[in-house]
Amino acid sequence: MDRFYNAPGDVVDEILQTAAATAPLCVAEPQSGLRILIRRDWDKADQGRRQVAVLSGGGAGHEPAHAGYIGEGMLTGAVSGSLFASPSVDAVLAAIREVCGEAGCLLVVKNYTGDRLNFGLAAERARGEGLNVAMVIVADDVAIEDAPQPRGIAGTVLVHKLCGYLAGQATPLDEIRKRAEALCQRMGSLGMALSAAAQPGQDPAERSPQLGLGIHNEAGTRQVDPKSADDAMALVLEPLRNALSDRRLSGPWIALLNDLGSCSTQEMGVLAASLLHQLGIEQVAHLIGPAPLMTSLDMHGFSLTLLPADDDVVTALSASTTAPAWPGLRATQAPKAFSPDTHQDHEALADDAPQNATTTAALERIIDVLRQAREELDALDAKSGDGDAGASMQSGADAIAKALQAKHLNTAALPNLFAGIGQLLSRDMGGSSGVLLSILFTAAAASLDQRGNLQEALAAGVDKMQTYGGAKPGDRTMLDALVPAIESLRRGEPLVQAAQAARDGAQATAALTHANAGRSAYVPESALKGVVDPGAEAVARVFEALAREQ
Amino acid sequence: MDRFYNAPGDVVDEILQTAAATAPLCVAEPQSGLRILIRRDWDKADQGRRQVAVLSGGGAGHEPAHAGYIGEGMLTGAVSGSLFASPSVDAVLAAIREVCGEAGCLLVVKNYTGDRLNFGLAAERARGEGLNVAMVIVADDVAIEDAPQPRGIAGTVLVHKLCGYLAGQATPLDEIRKRAEALCQRMGSLGMALSAAAQPGQDPAERSPQLGLGIHNEAGTRQVDPKSADDAMALVLEPLRNALSDRRLSGPWIALLNDLGSCSTQEMGVLAASLLHQLGIEQVAHLIGPAPLMTSLDMHGFSLTLLPADDDVVTALSASTTAPAWPGLRATQAPKAFSPDTHQDHEALADDAPQNATTTAALERIIDVLRQAREELDALDAKSGDGDAGASMQSGADAIAKALQAKHLNTAALPNLFAGIGQLLSRDMGGSSGVLLSILFTAAAASLDQRGNLQEALAAGVDKMQTYGGAKPGDRTMLDALVPAIESLRRGEPLVQAAQAARDGAQATAALTHANAGRSAYVPESALKGVVDPGAEAVARVFEALAREQ
Repeated sequence: MDRFYNAPGDVVDEILQTAAATAPLCVAEPQSGLRILIRRDWDKADQGRRQVAVLSGGGAGHEPAHAGYIGEGMLTGAVSGSLFASPSVDAVLAAIREVCGEAGCLLVVKNYTGDRLNFGLAAERARGEGLNVAMVIVADDVAIEDAPQPRGIAGTVLVHKLCGYLAGQATPLDEIRKRAEALCQRMGSLGMALSAAAQPGQDPAERSPQLGLGIHNEAGTRQVDPKSADDAMALVLEPLRNALSDRRLSGPWIALLNDLGSCSTQEMGVLAASLLHQLGIEQVAHLIGPAPLMTSLDMHGFSLTLLPADDDVVTALSASTTAPAWPGLRATQAPKAFSPDTHQDHEALADDAPQNATTTAALERIIDVLRQAREELDALDAKSGDGDAGASMQSGADAIAKALQAKHLNTAALPNLFAGIGQLLSRDMGGSSGVLLSILFTAAAASLDQRGNLQEALAAGVDKMQTYGGAKPGDRTMLDALVPAIESLRRGEPLVQAAQAARDGAQATAALTHANAGRSAYVPESALKGVVDPGAEAVARVFEALAREQ
Repeated sequence: MDRFYNAPGDVVDEILQTAAATAPLCVAEPQSGLRILIRRDWDKADQGRRQVAVLSGGGAGHEPAHAGYIGEGMLTGAVSGSLFASPSVDAVLAAIREVCGEAGCLLVVKNYTGDRLNFGLAAERARGEGLNVAMVIVADDVAIEDAPQPRGIAGTVLVHKLCGYLAGQATPLDEIRKRAEALCQRMGSLGMALSAAAQPGQDPAERSPQLGLGIHNEAGTRQVDPKSADDAMALVLEPLRNALSDRRLSGPWIALLNDLGSCSTQEMGVLAASLLHQLGIEQVAHLIGPAPLMTSLDMHGFSLTLLPADDDVVTALSASTTAPAWPGLRATQAPKAFSPDTHQDHEALADDAPQNATTTAALERIIDVLRQAREELDALDAKSGDGDAGASMQSGADAIAKALQAKHLNTAALPNLFAGIGQLLSRDMGGSSGVLLSILFTAAAASLDQRGNLQEALAAGVDKMQTYGGAKPGDRTMLDALVPAIESLRRGEPLVQAAQAARDGAQATAALTHANAGRSAYVPESALKGVVDPGAEAVARVFEALAREQ
């Protein structure tokens, strides 16, 4: 299976079912064979007396058009045909009868022969019944120069929005039609795609990148060979701007950037950046999308619609609507930059920091122990992880050694010392262990600052390691040594006893063959049997070093 | 080129530029190397005194997450790493410093080690600076049973929305954290994809359909072989419902249907229909999406998130926000059906309709002429179109003949007669010509009804043919005979003269080698030279038949 479909013949009705179940719509009963959706709150005898009903529709395969544009302030209803095929005259006529009140009904039709004829005949029938019906034909495609009948494509959505807005303002039918026709004269659209769309149940045709696409998977007017998103946007912009300039239209523009089907959010974001860059942000006053607005099934392409940012159009397009697929009009603006505050804590790493000889000596012992342990720790890690635990500990030790030598660490004040070690470890030690130990010291420093109790501070630090690291004792990590050692200290036991607790905890990791976190989580159980966790081993050695000389 | 990208290394910054240019954001100056976006209207000394700042972020490649969720009522800001890689501790810390006021700051973090550690350490540093920071870790993925550290995926967006809503209500930091953690306990998500995502500049890995996907293009937990969208949805629903049921959670649900990257709008619509059908509409109280909410680049797949529709959560998720990518919460409802009004105009086609002998005789002459012309018209059409013009005219003639015989056509009243012919032609004649002639008679009937002038009525009908058909005289269509004939009648000339005008017009089409509309538009010019348009020929013969017997 290449695509998420059921039976190809069911696609259209399934999509309409979703639309009807997730928005307040009425839908023509299925046995009628007609696909009509109408605003549930529309009453032609009530709102329809004062407000023009706005209907649109056409073939399916262009979703979210047209059902997604039904709502207050946009379409009153929509009529759908089958995939890429116009709805029948009967369907359009039944929709008109359903919505058209005294204020009349406007049909917004894309310029394709089938749609024009079927909507047209339905309009004439409805007029024969005394209904006040008008039609606007949208022909925004500029792909073919001097085309007698340019196609109607994504710009149609803007006509939906304008007409729906004006209808909501109780504008008379004829005035809405004129305003819509004026809008149609002032916009142009052009599409490009890297490949063809696939009809449900079929493979897509092989097709080179093309420019000047409609929305029925027809070939474009020109083969192109864009090398980048910037290229692709330039290929679309040049003929589009020329066509608009021939009509004496100029920016600042409203731009509608339409995903023709299966572009990723990332690609559309890059294309939007190209657009803003190439036209200039000040020339793109407002952006609609990027979003799938008028698609051609899963065509991998986009279309761009441009129109001058006239005040009345901006007002209409900015107005609120309950139509679920309208993405809104976004004013663009030159990015506003701020200077991020990345200062380091200068109290933690100072120049010529005060020194306490005992503390400095203890730190030097720890540094020695870790440097000496490097090979053994790496060897343990080679059995249970990626073999760099010793190297990692050594680089942490080296960073602290260097800072001690330069008198950057204040060994006379534990909160400052811990904060400084925290900074050094995250900056210079690297790996998850570096960040985890940094968390331990940083959190301990904050706790010491507030409460002044060393044992509680260390416990708080270990607690944060567990929160952020996601491991707990028993998971084969350095916590297996750290937690019992710090618990021992909290009970008021001397360092030797804490060191023993760390050693016992480290030793016990050799029996833990199921790792839930840390480096061993991806290693088979048999490989872990009898192997002490290198992180726990390092912790045990640090506590032993501290205890030895007490 | 397979995808709309520029240099692969530029993708993330280009997307962020688009975000920053199309929403009121402040962005960390590019030379800082940090990717931070903040609500432009946020002032930590003002709103930040009363309202908690909500920050989120993580690797890029999940767009519209996270920048798209920045706005009033959702995120205060977002921090982005590079593709699929956590932002640095410095970036997160700088963001916290930028937004955190007296009310504090909440970090919403997806449960991936890198994010947890980097956001965690940044939080600890910020606390060390006296800032009031809390963190919520989202772990909604249920792909791995009893996973010690379930991944954070699309459900994270719901946590953004809840926290943003509560922050806007001036809820204290600790209370927001608790409510967010409670939400995390009550939701589950599961992903499935048909193929892998492609990193910019690389081809996607070949990969079979898989279930239990994260959002970093990692393999799923299980290979699957869905045969349809219904299958795919069932494969996701079963383990997801089991996981929720194990936690004693039950519906009615809020469902979030997330496009993982490159599903078409149509596929997502079909998947949503599957979801509603399989769970039952009454069990899916609210739907969010379908939409790309938390993507994995262009992965062709989807994820589903379910959580009980608790009142407080519904309130938070329903609240308005200015975040551009939040698609809203839509209440579902059983589709409401209406019975479309497809009645035919009974006055136009009646039983035992009144007859006028002269009119009936004239119609019969037209019918004879068209039946006799069939082969000649087909032959003309074979040279310029698809060769069925004669057959099409004959079927129109046959339909009228049958209705005449059954006395369904009221030949005693022209408005009724024209309306009846209009109905017959659209129903039984087929093709564009059937609809066009139907438009002619239908519009003429309405005009006759209103003004009573036959010549004006025919002119009105021809006018509508041009509007809807898109052709004009000179385009090699039946208009080339119709328009001069009706103009002649409007000048008060007798039928013989009108018939001559039709004949001249038809004859002139033989010299028209450039067709702009109708069947000949796709035929090379050389093939058209010397060939009379069959539609115009038919019209000339009809007028000649009417004139002959006058």
